[in-house]
Amino acid sequence: MSEHKVVSAALIIIGNEILSGRTKDANLQFLGDHLNDMGIRIRECRIVPDIEDMIVETVNYCRATYDYVFTTGGIGPTHDDITAAAVAKAFDTPLERHPEAEAMLLAKYKPGDVTPARMKMADIPFGASLLKNPVSTAPGFRLENVFVMAGVPRIMQSMFKEYAHELVGGAKVLSASVTSHVPEGTIAMRLGEIQDNFPDTDVGSYPFWNDGKPGTNLIVRHPDRDVVNAACDEIVQMIKDLGGTPVDVKRPD
Amino acid sequence: MSEHKVVSAALIIIGNEILSGRTKDANLQFLGDHLNDMGIRIRECRIVPDIEDMIVETVNYCRATYDYVFTTGGIGPTHDDITAAAVAKAFDTPLERHPEAEAMLLAKYKPGDVTPARMKMADIPFGASLLKNPVSTAPGFRLENVFVMAGVPRIMQSMFKEYAHELVGGAKVLSASVTSHVPEGTIAMRLGEIQDNFPDTDVGSYPFWNDGKPGTNLIVRHPDRDVVNAACDEIVQMIKDLGGTPVDVKRPD
Repeated sequence: MSEHKVVSAALIIIGNEILSGRTKDANLQFLGDHLNDMGIRIRECRIVPDIEDMIVETVNYCRATYDYVFTTGGIGPTHDDITAAAVAKAFDTPLERHPEAEAMLLAKYKPGDVTPARMKMADIPFGASLLKNPVSTAPGFRLENVFVMAGVPRIMQSMFKEYAHELVGGAKVLSASVTSHVPEGTIAMRLGEIQDNFPDTDVGSYPFWNDGKPGTNLIVRHPDRDVVNAACDEIVQMIKDLGGTPVDVKRPD
Repeated sequence: MSEHKVVSAALIIIGNEILSGRTKDANLQFLGDHLNDMGIRIRECRIVPDIEDMIVETVNYCRATYDYVFTTGGIGPTHDDITAAAVAKAFDTPLERHPEAEAMLLAKYKPGDVTPARMKMADIPFGASLLKNPVSTAPGFRLENVFVMAGVPRIMQSMFKEYAHELVGGAKVLSASVTSHVPEGTIAMRLGEIQDNFPDTDVGSYPFWNDGKPGTNLIVRHPDRDVVNAACDEIVQMIKDLGGTPVDVKRPD
């Protein structure tokens, strides 16, 4: 893919509740999908607990390794919301009351509802710019290549949509998929040959198991539509040659 | 929690399809839940692509850091199934045809269906023991503290149930939860005081947003039932003091 630059990203999901199985994350799927449309590819996702040292280490590793870093979770008003403090520490910058964030929160809350806990949500690492939150006001922030967002999916999505135009993507990766009930073990060798025929593409095989019957989704990904379609043609032919039926074929839009 | 040992674990989810948003992982939630019941706590989850170096590095970091490591994905017959080879490399041990795994696969497949790709699933790192797969035969394996499983949830769950009795857990972490429509900003300060009153517990606040109304699930976790109930009592009282209604209270079973 040398002529098609793909921009890389990491997602850091912060919160004990995801690791305990109590809450099912919905942000990776949303971001994977939307970032892919912009030519930004999530290369790694780390889910970490509400422990400052782990957040600091993870942020520092990811911001040095990937073009963009997105975090979700831990920016609310409670004692376990430590993401802003941890990101400040990662950047070795002070956590300070941000005048614009403070003004937003003061405008939102009735005077009796202005509590120190709520105003803590205006404490932002020095040098960061705010990411607006159209749903519940308390902003996220951006510091260099790190974007810090809320964990509640509806709020995260609204923040993302506010700043998505700032992201500089690469070539959008297009994909085609072919679903059949030919099992992986039957197609594996010929699929490997198709991968060899299209060395720059990403040919993936994703088995499923429905009603006691195995099957596979075969996916081919590449930024060039013609390459995707040519590889898809070979996959469809392979399924037919093996006596199967391509029950669902999706081409790039 | 000094008198209550909690055993730690990491989950490594291997597969491009999870990072792209195409497939939603279901294994973290299952494992988080079941391991917690055994007193094993997932402290970190890393989702990595089908890239050997990243799998090797991640396995080596996690097996040195946590009591147990679980991996899901990448043990099928296709060219993108590279987990067994990567784990062998991480342990600096050869990948070899395992006689028992080979016998299992030969017993499953009709002679005409015995392909080199299928038999690749009998290539296991030297020294590993097999994890039986009651659903689709091809086994996972255990090497020291690392358990390598399939990615398809039904297969992963069947493998886990086969060996779960081998895991040595710690104290089971019990939890209580209190749901109300009092927003986080209102409860934050008093909730912080409750956390201070019960310093060994893990008091979490998880905001939600339903039908345009904010609310919170407050969770307290600790291995001791009396401690969980005492902290839960204080949380319920706090909600009432703040003019709210605890609409759902769940105590440890």
